[in-house]
Amino acid sequence: MSKRSPIATQETRDEKETSRIEAFSDGVFAIAITLLVLDIKVPHDLTEEAGLAQALLHLWPAYLAFVISFAFIGIMWINHHKLFRLIRRSDHGLLLLNTLLLMGITFVPFPTTLLAENLQHPDQRLAAMVYSGIYEVIAIFFNLLWWYASYKNRLLSKNADPRAVRAITWSYACGPSLYLVAFGLAFVSAMASLAFNVALAVFFALPLGLQRVSLD
Amino acid sequence: MSKRSPIATQETRDEKETSRIEAFSDGVFAIAITLLVLDIKVPHDLTEEAGLAQALLHLWPAYLAFVISFAFIGIMWINHHKLFRLIRRSDHGLLLLNTLLLMGITFVPFPTTLLAENLQHPDQRLAAMVYSGIYEVIAIFFNLLWWYASYKNRLLSKNADPRAVRAITWSYACGPSLYLVAFGLAFVSAMASLAFNVALAVFFALPLGLQRVSLD
Amino acid sequence: MSKRSPIATQETRDEKETSRIEAFSDGVFAIAITLLVLDIKVPHDLTEEAGLAQALLHLWPAYLAFVISFAFIGIMWINHHKLFRLIRRSDHGLLLLNTLLLMGITFVPFPTTLLAENLQHPDQRLAAMVYSGIYEVIAIFFNLLWWYASYKNRLLSKNADPRAVRAITWSYACGPSLYLVAFGLAFVSAMASLAFNVALAVFFALPLGLQRVSLD
Amino acid sequence: MSKRSPIATQETRDEKETSRIEAFSDGVFAIAITLLVLDIKVPHDLTEEAGLAQALLHLWPAYLAFVISFAFIGIMWINHHKLFRLIRRSDHGLLLLNTLLLMGITFVPFPTTLLAENLQHPDQRLAAMVYSGIYEVIAIFFNLLWWYASYKNRLLSKNADPRAVRAITWSYACGPSLYLVAFGLAFVSAMASLAFNVALAVFFALPLGLQRVSLD
Repeated sequence: MSKRSPIATQETRDEKETSRIEAFSDGVFAIAITLLVLDIKVPHDLTEEAGLAQALLHLWPAYLAFVISFAFIGIMWINHHKLFRLIRRSDHGLLLLNTLLLMGITFVPFPTTLLAENLQHPDQRLAAMVYSGIYEVIAIFFNLLWWYASYKNRLLSKNADPRAVRAITWSYACGPSLYLVAFGLAFVSAMASLAFNVALAVFFALPLGLQRVSLD
Repeated sequence: MSKRSPIATQETRDEKETSRIEAFSDGVFAIAITLLVLDIKVPHDLTEEAGLAQALLHLWPAYLAFVISFAFIGIMWINHHKLFRLIRRSDHGLLLLNTLLLMGITFVPFPTTLLAENLQHPDQRLAAMVYSGIYEVIAIFFNLLWWYASYKNRLLSKNADPRAVRAITWSYACGPSLYLVAFGLAFVSAMASLAFNVALAVFFALPLGLQRVSLD
Repeated sequence: MSKRSPIATQETRDEKETSRIEAFSDGVFAIAITLLVLDIKVPHDLTEEAGLAQALLHLWPAYLAFVISFAFIGIMWINHHKLFRLIRRSDHGLLLLNTLLLMGITFVPFPTTLLAENLQHPDQRLAAMVYSGIYEVIAIFFNLLWWYASYKNRLLSKNADPRAVRAITWSYACGPSLYLVAFGLAFVSAMASLAFNVALAVFFALPLGLQRVSLD
Repeated sequence: MSKRSPIATQETRDEKETSRIEAFSDGVFAIAITLLVLDIKVPHDLTEEAGLAQALLHLWPAYLAFVISFAFIGIMWINHHKLFRLIRRSDHGLLLLNTLLLMGITFVPFPTTLLAENLQHPDQRLAAMVYSGIYEVIAIFFNLLWWYASYKNRLLSKNADPRAVRAITWSYACGPSLYLVAFGLAFVSAMASLAFNVALAVFFALPLGLQRVSLD
């Protein structure tokens, strides 16, 4: 370390800077994703006819909500992780926008429970709207964070591949419109909206051609 | 590593020292901020007239308390993060004062629930007093930690800018008096106290001129 | 850093890559293992004859489920830790398979509560089946992750000992069959299945001869 | 890195080894300490005569249990942190003993709730016994971990000061006997046992003369 040039030292301090943001974010993602299981309540007060097996099967909306929300938070973590491979510097604005994004993430367990308890009940379309709505908000927060960091390469690594940056900008820009479709579908049918959400999760889980270029 | 001078090694060991304090603190901040969502309970036992939509709207005090508490813990994390960019060494006193500060942070979910459940109810002013009271206590703990670390530059980085140190000392010294105002306002009106708390959150979120000097 | 060869830099970036996966996974393991205690409910509504002491003793299924689940998640963490001493590179597939594995881990508190509440009750065999079933699924996810990473040494450290890699492959391959036995035993007797689970925990806790070679 | 001798590389890999154990342990400590606040329940069903203020004051056993348990877990974390400044290498036994210690730590919220709900009630002495009992068990686990790691300097840093090692061995050896006193006192009086626990927390929080030598 004693032999490094001042520029290298600067680089190192910058890495340390974002590494604590990443550690804090990792913690929040990890807790939000783990709290989801608390929404699956062990069934009590079983009746004579329908035993525990039946009761466990009737919990399927809770399992479904758990799996979809887990997939979403997991994929968001992977995306956050990828963004911060390119984001190297940090400033006050980035800290605030990252906090805003994390607020969206930590809120996910609430609409998840709401969905789990209302699926197959009269209010299921409203629950699906709220559920898609929160992802819409998170998608917007992701775009704000990325626009702020990537504007004129403000906080990006010096050797960030411009094509990779553009590819992320484009694929993120699609997010809010897609979740808006999921939100709109919920007016018609809760299950259609959920199915579209699952399709979106698969879409964002698959590495896009251009994203691949930047990571491999 | 084998070629470093003893001084460089000392520096490195010091960094490792505070880095584990930061990791533990990050964990506590991350969990406290994520537990806040557990206070927003999905509504049950809906009546015929007022459906789920109405019930979700009636939860606004819970959403408000969630957002304010999230903003406060988020801003406190940002501030903790900034302090530990200057604090490089660690000793037993710092560990104890940091633990005291974290005790304040982890307590936040309790007054948050208290506020969420009592806003717009007879005891709302008492709830707002407790809510402001805990931030008053945390502000005092932040000052204790900073005074201890910065006294004669005891635990600060050798090349900490004295103006940056003084700027933090001054802006932190304002905290307890400001939260005392929020506490006093709660005697008169819960909403006035909350509005002042929101204003404080915005104030502490904005980077002050002098803080900026030290970070950019 | 400025003086390192390109190869060394590549190596360093790879380490950083998996280190954030490890940090996120550590967080999820740590939270899942800590949430287990929430399943042990402090007894209320004590009757005259049977006081608190009796009530605390009657909680033994909850203590037992806590200890077994804690041991399992702890051992899984140790195994995850060992795998990532050999896995050095990361790609999109690894991220997805690791997320899948973590989904299994975070689900553990649910079957743990289910078991704790049904042990010594009519549905205890079903509860033991679900409990063994989740470990079966996790064991399969562990194999998927390891096969993906170790196939043609794709993501392993260049100097990974081939014997160590083969030893892990073999000991992991046993997992699913063993948990299948625990699952089958639950049809006959919940306690027999649990006893077998305890034996498996002890077996996986003991370092195997060949694993030792790779770690010492 | 490319210029380091094999010995230095070995040293570096060892540090990485314990650093992930520390990260996982930090996570568990951080979550256990933050979950404590969930035991303080916001009061409901207030009667006309005794309003919220009264109800909040009646929660003092919950606040007391929160503060003592927080102090204990905080101090245990500080001690864990200090041990791992000396422990540099890791093996399977250390991983298992550390997992055992963490099982004790994560169990703390249960006796804390038990104490908070039974203080000033008929069963308060039993609750105080369970509460002291868990600390007794944790103190024994701490000794097991330390004996294992420090036996013939097995896993300690090469340049660990022998006086510091002996000082820790002695101060830790006192722990189980002291908690046994707290346990015994609970037979006579819950409050006397608690007061002794507070005194122990203060005693372990104060840096001992010899410990200081090893850290400054």
